[in-house]
Amino acid sequence: LMEKFFNPRSVAIVGATPKEGKVGRVLVENFLKRFSGKIYPVNPNYDEILGLKTYASLKDIPDEIDLVVVAVPAPMVPSVLREAGEKGVKAAIVISGGFRETGTEEGARLEDELIEVCKRYGIRVIGPNCIGIFDNWSGVDTYFLPDYKMKRPPRGYISFISQSGAFASALLDWMAHHNIGVSRAISYGNKIDIDDVDLLEYLGEDDKTRLIFMYLEGLKTGRGRVFIEKAREVGLKKPIVIYKAGKTERGGLAAASHTAALAGNYQLYRAAIRQAGMIEASSFDEIMDLSKVLLTQPLMKGRRVYVVTDAGGVGVMLTDALASEGFELPRTPSDLRDELRKMLPPHCIVDNPIDLTGDTDDERYILVLEKLLPRSDVDAVVVVALPQVPGIRGELANYLVKAREYGKPLLSIVIGGGEAEKFKYILEHNGIPVFESPERAAKALGALYRYSVFRGVAREER
Amino acid sequence: LMEKFFNPRSVAIVGATPKEGKVGRVLVENFLKRFSGKIYPVNPNYDEILGLKTYASLKDIPDEIDLVVVAVPAPMVPSVLREAGEKGVKAAIVISGGFRETGTEEGARLEDELIEVCKRYGIRVIGPNCIGIFDNWSGVDTYFLPDYKMKRPPRGYISFISQSGAFASALLDWMAHHNIGVSRAISYGNKIDIDDVDLLEYLGEDDKTRLIFMYLEGLKTGRGRVFIEKAREVGLKKPIVIYKAGKTERGGLAAASHTAALAGNYQLYRAAIRQAGMIEASSFDEIMDLSKVLLTQPLMKGRRVYVVTDAGGVGVMLTDALASEGFELPRTPSDLRDELRKMLPPHCIVDNPIDLTGDTDDERYILVLEKLLPRSDVDAVVVVALPQVPGIRGELANYLVKAREYGKPLLSIVIGGGEAEKFKYILEHNGIPVFESPERAAKALGALYRYSVFRGVAREER
Repeated sequence: LMEKFFNPRSVAIVGATPKEGKVGRVLVENFLKRFSGKIYPVNPNYDEILGLKTYASLKDIPDEIDLVVVAVPAPMVPSVLREAGEKGVKAAIVISGGFRETGTEEGARLEDELIEVCKRYGIRVIGPNCIGIFDNWSGVDTYFLPDYKMKRPPRGYISFISQSGAFASALLDWMAHHNIGVSRAISYGNKIDIDDVDLLEYLGEDDKTRLIFMYLEGLKTGRGRVFIEKAREVGLKKPIVIYKAGKTERGGLAAASHTAALAGNYQLYRAAIRQAGMIEASSFDEIMDLSKVLLTQPLMKGRRVYVVTDAGGVGVMLTDALASEGFELPRTPSDLRDELRKMLPPHCIVDNPIDLTGDTDDERYILVLEKLLPRSDVDAVVVVALPQVPGIRGELANYLVKAREYGKPLLSIVIGGGEAEKFKYILEHNGIPVFESPERAAKALGALYRYSVFRGVAREER
Repeated sequence: LMEKFFNPRSVAIVGATPKEGKVGRVLVENFLKRFSGKIYPVNPNYDEILGLKTYASLKDIPDEIDLVVVAVPAPMVPSVLREAGEKGVKAAIVISGGFRETGTEEGARLEDELIEVCKRYGIRVIGPNCIGIFDNWSGVDTYFLPDYKMKRPPRGYISFISQSGAFASALLDWMAHHNIGVSRAISYGNKIDIDDVDLLEYLGEDDKTRLIFMYLEGLKTGRGRVFIEKAREVGLKKPIVIYKAGKTERGGLAAASHTAALAGNYQLYRAAIRQAGMIEASSFDEIMDLSKVLLTQPLMKGRRVYVVTDAGGVGVMLTDALASEGFELPRTPSDLRDELRKMLPPHCIVDNPIDLTGDTDDERYILVLEKLLPRSDVDAVVVVALPQVPGIRGELANYLVKAREYGKPLLSIVIGGGEAEKFKYILEHNGIPVFESPERAAKALGALYRYSVFRGVAREER
């Protein structure tokens, strides 16, 4: 059934309009751009909208409708759904606001009526008061923002579920700007029906989704246990990164005003998140930091990390950060130490962090990494390559891309401007996450380690 | 005397060379580009380097020399300094490595000899084994990296002192890329003479420096007390942001290999940093986050922060982050609540965070801010403006710039791509810090609050 939401053959847009700047027009425009199924605008005042034949009501459409998108004033919504039900429609996205979120009696009454109608006809609903679905593969796009306000990201394998519509659209725009691939993005508004659990289940089985991110304020009452179970099940197949908003008492109050969510006790949420093997992002930055590492890197077998650097200071920063995350930075074992001593100039430091110093060149890095990566006592390597150093010319970046073959997590720290951007571009486009901040790299690797433990790949808890 | 380092009338470069890719050539090139005083290359093998008359030795230069820059092999350095001393030179930057940092007896012996010579002649030294000074006002530039490897940032008012040369150059390059203004940047290598205390004193009195950043692994033995006293004195005039590396035991080991620094007990450093009123940046990101807020924002009188948003979710994230930093987010007082109720549509939330919702326009923000900013019970305002919202057209950015007149800290959260970049550009170029991450904004405001307490402007400790 969820296919009717994400991959419908036909869509009716109720509330379509040719009027510039209106939600009902942006919806039609966006479907026209990327959706390859049939589009039926519905509006009794027009015969045609943007070149598409327009129908006075759902009943008049001489075709089966997989998905109906509703963007009419709240008081009209229940009757639109009734009509949809009579036509046999099974999936609806209700964009319209004006329901329980208004805090008014009338809003609550309309929402109850809507629930009742959908139950009666067996219609599954996303919304109301939502921004709905952006599906980068099928072209379903109910994000009612024009391209010039919100760019659409390239196709990719990250999907997300957001309790905040505005945050979902800002995130898509941000990901487009950073050229990060997205699969499907859903925001469910008041979630009278389809909720986090349903969406997790769908995305868990979706082969176009390799990582799921969730922005969550609170679950519906009574959905806690099934959420944990579902997350655990999905998490064994693919990582779930979660940002829980409403952590503090004051934040919980704000969440209650925002989505009427019961933010609940954060400590309980935290325990549940861990139990379910989800990876918590505790800041905006961590959302993408963790996601890019979890999406691109193989699981870790242990917590022994080596650092290779051309900048001693950044080596120290990174050592602090990795140690704070619970990683072990083994002192270089004597056999390796002897090998490195033989091939490196005497002023290089062969202890971990291995400091090739500012007169290094690409070749020196490659020599060391070729010794390091095949060893069974090395679980991950972080390469600090500040490209201000004259000897770094581009070979290192190409080597690192090839070195993914060793099947070990490989991250890089790069700080700087033009040269750094070039270096970063090659790496990030080939699945090697690059960070400016040693602390952020360490945190992302920490998340990969925790997920590896959950998946039973890492040898030990810490 | 420090003027001889930062603003010399004449500079001799010992070890100058016309050979491509050599340090001695890059030094001459960089001085030629920006330095307006006299430049005297010294090298017995050339009569002329890059069009400059070249001298066989320092003695041959028919002029007083304010600053000598030394880039010859370590064993020759003491005799160069002896000559400098005989010529009456009082300031030297020794770029050359090969001293105590090598861990060899010969290196230590050479360093001791160098110290002895400098004492005898009363020469003050920065280095050896250092990258020296980049002075954006006088054009002194001993950072021996060509422009294409390390871009030079625009002139500005942030100065920094870094125990790591590579980190200093990466940071300059990074700041150039982000168009952040720099005044003077110093890295002192083995610091046999001029150290953090001397540099703090100089930058403290320098009117081209409005904020000081320090990257520190460890102080010289016996300099702890005087460092704290000097930092406290300078801190009362301008903020000092400090990043302490070697926080963990493992990081301390790495620091010992790197600069032979005794990283010391981090808890003691932390206590000293607080006592001295310095602001600790605990991650790479915080260095610039804290600096940009401390540099541009007025001090805070208290910890009552209001949030105005068009995205409820980001309002919740920010509320959590501000509460975690110890800020108070007062519930909107009833008089203000009544005023807001009158002027806002009913679906807006007038409680703090004030949520103007996704159908807001610039005018709605301006109405609210005009009520909020003049109030004596408002100590700072954070404006979340996700510009995907169609109603945000540019007026808000201009208004915020004007609203600096209210003399209160004003930060903004913007997330997204093209439209967000435009918005951000206007604000950041006019002294309003913009963040993507609610958590980073809150931390930076927290630093401003702590500094305001240290300066005696904030009413209460928390």
